[in-house]
Amino acid sequence: MNKKTIIGVMGPATSPNEKDLEDAFQLGKLIAQNGWILLTGGSAQGVMNEANRGAKENSGLTIGVIKNQDSKISEFVDIPIITDVNDARNNINVLSSNFVVACGIGLGTTSEIALALKHGKEVILLNQTEESLNFFKSWNKSNLHIANSPQQAIEMIEANLKNNDK
Amino acid sequence: MNKKTIIGVMGPATSPNEKDLEDAFQLGKLIAQNGWILLTGGSAQGVMNEANRGAKENSGLTIGVIKNQDSKISEFVDIPIITDVNDARNNINVLSSNFVVACGIGLGTTSEIALALKHGKEVILLNQTEESLNFFKSWNKSNLHIANSPQQAIEMIEANLKNNDK
Amino acid sequence: MNKKTIIGVMGPATSPNEKDLEDAFQLGKLIAQNGWILLTGGSAQGVMNEANRGAKENSGLTIGVIKNQDSKISEFVDIPIITDVNDARNNINVLSSNFVVACGIGLGTTSEIALALKHGKEVILLNQTEESLNFFKSWNKSNLHIANSPQQAIEMIEANLKNNDK
Amino acid sequence: MNKKTIIGVMGPATSPNEKDLEDAFQLGKLIAQNGWILLTGGSAQGVMNEANRGAKENSGLTIGVIKNQDSKISEFVDIPIITDVNDARNNINVLSSNFVVACGIGLGTTSEIALALKHGKEVILLNQTEESLNFFKSWNKSNLHIANSPQQAIEMIEANLKNNDK
Repeated sequence: MNKKTIIGVMGPATSPNEKDLEDAFQLGKLIAQNGWILLTGGSAQGVMNEANRGAKENSGLTIGVIKNQDSKISEFVDIPIITDVNDARNNINVLSSNFVVACGIGLGTTSEIALALKHGKEVILLNQTEESLNFFKSWNKSNLHIANSPQQAIEMIEANLKNNDK
Repeated sequence: MNKKTIIGVMGPATSPNEKDLEDAFQLGKLIAQNGWILLTGGSAQGVMNEANRGAKENSGLTIGVIKNQDSKISEFVDIPIITDVNDARNNINVLSSNFVVACGIGLGTTSEIALALKHGKEVILLNQTEESLNFFKSWNKSNLHIANSPQQAIEMIEANLKNNDK
Repeated sequence: MNKKTIIGVMGPATSPNEKDLEDAFQLGKLIAQNGWILLTGGSAQGVMNEANRGAKENSGLTIGVIKNQDSKISEFVDIPIITDVNDARNNINVLSSNFVVACGIGLGTTSEIALALKHGKEVILLNQTEESLNFFKSWNKSNLHIANSPQQAIEMIEANLKNNDK
Repeated sequence: MNKKTIIGVMGPATSPNEKDLEDAFQLGKLIAQNGWILLTGGSAQGVMNEANRGAKENSGLTIGVIKNQDSKISEFVDIPIITDVNDARNNINVLSSNFVVACGIGLGTTSEIALALKHGKEVILLNQTEESLNFFKSWNKSNLHIANSPQQAIEMIEANLKNNDK
């Protein structure tokens, strides 16, 4: 495989909770330390910004799939892709990621999890509400995984990559 | 108001249940009888096809926001808009509708409900699972409504339109 | 054929000349009088607005494929499709039209003519500059047509539709 | 400036001429040697593939903004962004590039040059037909530049970057 592994981290830009932000930073850090590329929606706020900060402070490479020409882009994004398609870029986020990690939940994140599950992407949920967990589990999709920590999310990705290398 | 009222009916193209299909037909019929325009994703299958059939058999006008150039388009769509943006067209569906009715639930429908709630559209849920209802209610959004029948969904739209006319 | 014929009229929103505007009005009028549907980018300015005005003053049906949620929409558009994909909607304009008429030329119009020619749509050019005519003719495409008046553009469409009916 | 400079190279996927392909390889090589990132439409054919090959054989970083999930992606693309919006991705190509170099001309390339000029991007034309040169020059845009060789295109970018650094 020539292509580098791209890990998408999705999560709320507005009103994330403290745990979402801490975990997003950890995810970014661990993704960078594994030599993977981080892909997010590239916002200067919330989960996206923290994941990018975690990756950049650990010398990772970061891609931001940006909503529009006026979007405030995280200073920790190396490569901004200016889609100008607004929320339709959520579909680009999930299709361009080899794995999708949802860190926390928002309505935009909901659309990303749903589309990722539909496209057969491996999806890892972190910091979900009870209602969110119950809802996504009700689809009985084998590509849905639940992690209890950023570390466990990363281990799930490692295990999956090793499995596909065999 | 010069513009005609556009009602979006969203729902699964694949594996809808019998009740979804019956209600979709009723929705299409009632939308047409009210003189509103029906907007769907325009698929030749499932909820979309039945809603369009219900509207056309009652002399309604139907718009289909189509995934791509190869999509099988419902024969009951008058005006196909060929987006060629695939699942990104879900955002176009909800932004172009004055009201969004979800009839049944699929992963694509999930992305549409989430984006519609995010954009502040009035969203009416019909034929949902317990998990879906609990999940969407957990957002505490005043633009979310639950209907028990196509007739009740239509009454909710009528009441809202009357209210805005005052 | 169940579907109604959709005629796309493309042209500059800003700095159209007087002739472009007059011809756009005539095109809209003749499209409506033929019972066809008019599709434009739906802007409240320039060629798009005049084409829509011409159609509405003659009881036509008009669709506007709108750039984004903040776009100023022509008051003469019946059905606004809010794409929120900005200039990427140019591709939707041409794919959703059975015939594409370019009335005048702008940079956005250039992208629409190019994509329409690429997709094999019948394209009719009106009010072009010498450089524009020479450029588009240099592709040697059989789906490119040059009209000298709105009336001639409409006759070309009528002839093509009759030919396909045989 | 934290962000790395991104150079977009646009050009025909099908029926490029020999000179287009040679120049595309040189552009990719020189972009990589300057430490810039190469962005293309990522196709496995034509100008895009050669530009990516030139960059990768010189240790550059390459981004491909891909049409859809079934597109044949150049083996020389490091980071594929799967847009699934087909030709609407042309607008993403130009908005995501700091400079746009058109190497040869096709109908897709035409739409990219037009949109780039519209968005105020610095556009450099290489290997154009007489009709194409005359057409794009007729817009009298100060952001349009004509280069006679890949080397001259790169010098124009260097000069512009130096100017903006002052």
